[in-house]
Amino acid sequence: MIIKNLPFASAEYDRRIALVRSAMDVAGIDTLFVTDPSNQAWLTGYDGWSFYVHQGVILQGEGDPIWWGRRQDASGARRTVWMDDDNVRGYADHFVQSTERHPMQELAGILQELGAEHIGVEMDNYYFSAKAFAVMQSSLPDARFSDATAMVNWKRGVKSEPELEYMRNAARISEKIIDGLLERVEPGVPKNEVVAEIYRDAVRGVDGAWGDYPAIVPLLPSGTDAAAPHLTWDGRPFETGEATFFEISGCYRRYHAPFCRSLFLGTPPDFLKRAEAALVEGLEAGLEAARAGNRACDIANALAAPLEAAGIERGERCGYPIGLSYPPDWGERTISLRVTDETVLEPNMTFHFMPGLWMADWGLEITESIRITEDGPAECFCDRPRKMFVKP
Amino acid sequence: MIIKNLPFASAEYDRRIALVRSAMDVAGIDTLFVTDPSNQAWLTGYDGWSFYVHQGVILQGEGDPIWWGRRQDASGARRTVWMDDDNVRGYADHFVQSTERHPMQELAGILQELGAEHIGVEMDNYYFSAKAFAVMQSSLPDARFSDATAMVNWKRGVKSEPELEYMRNAARISEKIIDGLLERVEPGVPKNEVVAEIYRDAVRGVDGAWGDYPAIVPLLPSGTDAAAPHLTWDGRPFETGEATFFEISGCYRRYHAPFCRSLFLGTPPDFLKRAEAALVEGLEAGLEAARAGNRACDIANALAAPLEAAGIERGERCGYPIGLSYPPDWGERTISLRVTDETVLEPNMTFHFMPGLWMADWGLEITESIRITEDGPAECFCDRPRKMFVKP
Repeated sequence: MIIKNLPFASAEYDRRIALVRSAMDVAGIDTLFVTDPSNQAWLTGYDGWSFYVHQGVILQGEGDPIWWGRRQDASGARRTVWMDDDNVRGYADHFVQSTERHPMQELAGILQELGAEHIGVEMDNYYFSAKAFAVMQSSLPDARFSDATAMVNWKRGVKSEPELEYMRNAARISEKIIDGLLERVEPGVPKNEVVAEIYRDAVRGVDGAWGDYPAIVPLLPSGTDAAAPHLTWDGRPFETGEATFFEISGCYRRYHAPFCRSLFLGTPPDFLKRAEAALVEGLEAGLEAARAGNRACDIANALAAPLEAAGIERGERCGYPIGLSYPPDWGERTISLRVTDETVLEPNMTFHFMPGLWMADWGLEITESIRITEDGPAECFCDRPRKMFVKP
Repeated sequence: MIIKNLPFASAEYDRRIALVRSAMDVAGIDTLFVTDPSNQAWLTGYDGWSFYVHQGVILQGEGDPIWWGRRQDASGARRTVWMDDDNVRGYADHFVQSTERHPMQELAGILQELGAEHIGVEMDNYYFSAKAFAVMQSSLPDARFSDATAMVNWKRGVKSEPELEYMRNAARISEKIIDGLLERVEPGVPKNEVVAEIYRDAVRGVDGAWGDYPAIVPLLPSGTDAAAPHLTWDGRPFETGEATFFEISGCYRRYHAPFCRSLFLGTPPDFLKRAEAALVEGLEAGLEAARAGNRACDIANALAAPLEAAGIERGERCGYPIGLSYPPDWGERTISLRVTDETVLEPNMTFHFMPGLWMADWGLEITESIRITEDGPAECFCDRPRKMFVKP
């Protein structure tokens, strides 16, 4: 007997399926093949670290979705998806990393059996390789394919109340992580020792919320290395005279609340204090602009003004939607908070407002995970001072 | 001034480049575009959690490789690759997750500038999407493309002495993780509390070796859930009367030594003890067969005999090569230890000998990371009793 522990009630999955089906209708596709692990989990509940082999979810206009993957992972699917066991299909292990056969040949047989004619595929997803598509095309010569990249992702944008509850849990974990590292970082402490405690705090979680693994590992470059946004860590010690940014996220049942703060050990130079002041002013202006009815670009423009006044020109977008995610990204890959994105903001959209400063030889990150409210400025998921912390 | 902290000396990178160039010659390609983060790191040293955007390494017959990626990550590349700054190229941020333009359009310009005519691409890699290939093809109508999936991976198979040293460090961390969890797991202890300590042990590392993040998170399903190989964890407690397998890996500078042990709380049933005995016998037979000059299938066949005698039929391969890796997989995706793989084993090939038993309603994992020696049976990286542990 399998006891399932689904993260959401069936009404929530019904809502999601209906949203995606409406998008499929607009696109004129009869079958959607979903490879993004976040989309698979959002539609079916599937949860497992098996995305290193080909797998996916098949959704058509009628009937429940089908989870399809490696046979051994079908056992995991039967334990984590809301559908009946009949809607879980596994392929034999000799398809795995073979040079003679490809799992997509097996999938093609299922799609044929289902009468799929016009198939949407997530062309620009990590887990839909060029080879996977080539094999699908050659195995289904009569099918028509359309690019359905981000079709599901766009439907994930506005969060339901149960989803927001999970993100609030994640935010409590994010706060705990930041509190802990601000206390522990000292000159001479090896970086990996601090990361060890970050992970411990993240996975222990908080009262009532066990910690899941975040879709991105902690990022925490120091000094001139903070010019690079995506460096991880090593065993060298923190040093006096350096700023370090900490980019982390608590995670609860795959939902994230990314949160970044910076810490300076010693006396920060004036240029960094001016940058901090401009960045905080920009964040506050951005939060004011992050209102239902405004556009994504309004946030980016509000942020840019005080930064530019301080002589800081950022080339990068300043945020992205967040929620349910699997590695390698905790963003939803739809809206970008940048001056060219005119997407209208809606209540319960959630973003990582992420105006990282990565300059020639220094860096600074002070960010907020936010929710667009019914009216008024954005609500921040975390509640910690919006500043560069300093330990003299 | 950037102080680089490269994991290997230049002779090691020269060796690697020469190996790959010989493979390029055989395939008749003048340009290789490498998207697998592990291959990028192996060739250039590049290290950063930036593989959620399009990036890669360009290698031609002459000259140093070129790292190409998002402009903000070029800052990370300049800090982590052995090549000169001139060989690091960054694309503008408006290419990121845009619906109007694609980074591969920018890459195409560089490949044209380099005179690339016959380009090898890793068709079946997570980080080479169907869309990426489609854009490359349409942007370079005169180029010829060949599938170079795993071309670099195959060259990674035989490890150098410095690589083995890193794997031995990883193995010390793996042992520490297993020692810690065997001590801490008790009935009633929430699973995430144990995982928190696993991470802490993993990242603190051991004397002389700080801990890096492994390419797969800890896997530790219990009881009937252990039928599924890739479930992660939640906040429910360990229970008496259940076996749990623990699949973990220490990681040192991206090198892995995966290691699995199982633990039964209470008195194990006879069927599990019989399975354990057969599995251990199979492991020992496999280690004996894992000799230079033998083939991958010889290991699989040696393992299968005692298991089949005990009535256990595994459908899955029983291992894969290991070494340097990034998420989502710590395998090298070349050889598979299975009855159809006749690859001849060479000294200093390294594998995760991984005969996991995932049956209808139970599971058991006892595994070894191994090195093929010059003569004699395989050497195990870790040194812990090869058994199912029991806490009465």
